[in-house]
Amino acid sequence: MTVRAYAVERPGGPVRRYEYEPEPLGPLEVDVAVTHCGVCQTDVGAVDDTYGISRFPVVAGHEAVGVIEAVGSAVDGTRLAVGQRVGVGATAGACFACAWCLSGRQHLCTEKDDLVLRGVGGAFATRVRAGDWRYVHPLPDALASEHAAPLLCAGITVFSAVVRYGVRPTDRVAVVGVGGLGHLALQFLAKWGCHVTAISTTAAKEDDARRFGAHEFVVADDLLQGDSGPHADGGLQRGSGSFDFILSTVSADLPWDAYLAALRPHGTLCVVGVPHGALTVNPLSLLLGEKRLVGGLVGTPEETRQMLDFAARHDIRPTVEPFPAARLDDALDHVRHGRARYRAVVEF
Amino acid sequence: MTVRAYAVERPGGPVRRYEYEPEPLGPLEVDVAVTHCGVCQTDVGAVDDTYGISRFPVVAGHEAVGVIEAVGSAVDGTRLAVGQRVGVGATAGACFACAWCLSGRQHLCTEKDDLVLRGVGGAFATRVRAGDWRYVHPLPDALASEHAAPLLCAGITVFSAVVRYGVRPTDRVAVVGVGGLGHLALQFLAKWGCHVTAISTTAAKEDDARRFGAHEFVVADDLLQGDSGPHADGGLQRGSGSFDFILSTVSADLPWDAYLAALRPHGTLCVVGVPHGALTVNPLSLLLGEKRLVGGLVGTPEETRQMLDFAARHDIRPTVEPFPAARLDDALDHVRHGRARYRAVVEF
Repeated sequence: MTVRAYAVERPGGPVRRYEYEPEPLGPLEVDVAVTHCGVCQTDVGAVDDTYGISRFPVVAGHEAVGVIEAVGSAVDGTRLAVGQRVGVGATAGACFACAWCLSGRQHLCTEKDDLVLRGVGGAFATRVRAGDWRYVHPLPDALASEHAAPLLCAGITVFSAVVRYGVRPTDRVAVVGVGGLGHLALQFLAKWGCHVTAISTTAAKEDDARRFGAHEFVVADDLLQGDSGPHADGGLQRGSGSFDFILSTVSADLPWDAYLAALRPHGTLCVVGVPHGALTVNPLSLLLGEKRLVGGLVGTPEETRQMLDFAARHDIRPTVEPFPAARLDDALDHVRHGRARYRAVVEF
Repeated sequence: MTVRAYAVERPGGPVRRYEYEPEPLGPLEVDVAVTHCGVCQTDVGAVDDTYGISRFPVVAGHEAVGVIEAVGSAVDGTRLAVGQRVGVGATAGACFACAWCLSGRQHLCTEKDDLVLRGVGGAFATRVRAGDWRYVHPLPDALASEHAAPLLCAGITVFSAVVRYGVRPTDRVAVVGVGGLGHLALQFLAKWGCHVTAISTTAAKEDDARRFGAHEFVVADDLLQGDSGPHADGGLQRGSGSFDFILSTVSADLPWDAYLAALRPHGTLCVVGVPHGALTVNPLSLLLGEKRLVGGLVGTPEETRQMLDFAARHDIRPTVEPFPAARLDDALDHVRHGRARYRAVVEF
């Protein structure tokens, strides 16, 4: 029952084969034989120790699709069975007993089983173990495995933000960044019924963005990336006061005041990408139009179920580039340098 | 019908008597003979031109209580009548036709009649004119005029934040600053049913804060005022992860990350005081606990009616220091230097 994994042993180091013996299976746990795993910017962060919290060796990977190999003794057999195709995302368990869990906000559980923080135990491996079966998601037949994988972190991250911040089909929304998260956000928001604007520094992505559902496309020139000069709001100016909701999926340090100015009164700027530097805003940018600056986080099990349903119903699918497991280093490098169009998925 | 007002003719200049002839009364307008007017930090900002938007001469004053002197031809006579005691706050009218007004969010109307921006036309005068009668608020008998005045800006500002950001009676909340706004926020939140903590740099305010309803009192030492050294979160540390809602009523540049850390997951930091500098936060402070940084703004007419009702029912009243109109300069100076305990009210 040895797990054959792909580990990185030092920050930025190459992937090496790495085997480990799992503990005996706990009563609530589920083992999944991985067939596909998406590569997220956070995986690069983990193997490069960008956040300074990695414990090496690191087996990354947290957008797993596969087949159930074993279930613990307390798993509800009417819901999950050996042989079933399922997904396991960034969160693979929670305590289901704290105030957050019991009020339907398991994503805020302080005991949650976060694959990114595990060290060894990620899904770049032949098998991944979920800490709690309620985080093992049966997949609708309509979703191919390579498409389902990126939905389990990139997809649910943007979907949860839309749900939790009350975006309505009558809203005008903007998505900053057309990448792994952004190209899914455009699809979800278009099918949500919104008027959708894509904002990207890459003019060449316009056709793709429109194909993903954007009604408008704004090129944010380089000045938009943190410069505070007189033209710092670049193409955004014509969007001033336009949006009810802006979802930033990028890690760039944006001119936040210009983005807040692009919101209508009462609008929400939701940050799901992690910028390199501090968020700095003029207090009046928030006060005068009663605007909100908020962070988004991964979804709950119920939101994940809704997201998978919604994606299947509306044929929402990531654009993926497949890599065999032996080329995991190339896949990581692809993501590291922002070259994925739009999500790298590794096949095991 | 000359209006005898108190104007400041240059930034920071003294108050002088200033008379002006009003335009003919429009159909929706209401003239109120002022008996009391609270002095807000924003009045000092207007006469000192702190925000760089004042048009001199400035007749400030936007927490007016008085008696209706005249009503326009289209005013609903079943609701307002000459001789009635009423209040007029920071906003004295709105278009009642735009998307914001028609969806119950008149405070976001871009055409709203903002007393602070009028130049001449504020309530430090024998008479103030409301641009629309729906912003002229009948006062419950239980509220004395000198107590009602500060409710019309300070009171509604904190009350609206509580209502709009969904504060619940089961929440643990903190109020930063025990001043004009803060001492009312403590009262409203205690009567709202919350567990209330007051945070102040002035240890001597503890007894007052507890009298206003605080269950706990935290002294934020000077380091809490913007220093980023190792003890920058001072007394806040023991509050870490404690609060569902923090209302900042001060203009100091706080260590925002420490305040965000003091929130429970999903918590909201609402800024109703205007800090001098930019708000700077670590993106992870927002992301990891899915926290919200938001601005609060004055209330709508309906919220103002609810606030006055709530204050009357719960005997919420500002602690006021009365000044005769002839001592308006002293009253302004009192507020300018943070000496008001807790609201200066000028009597005309």
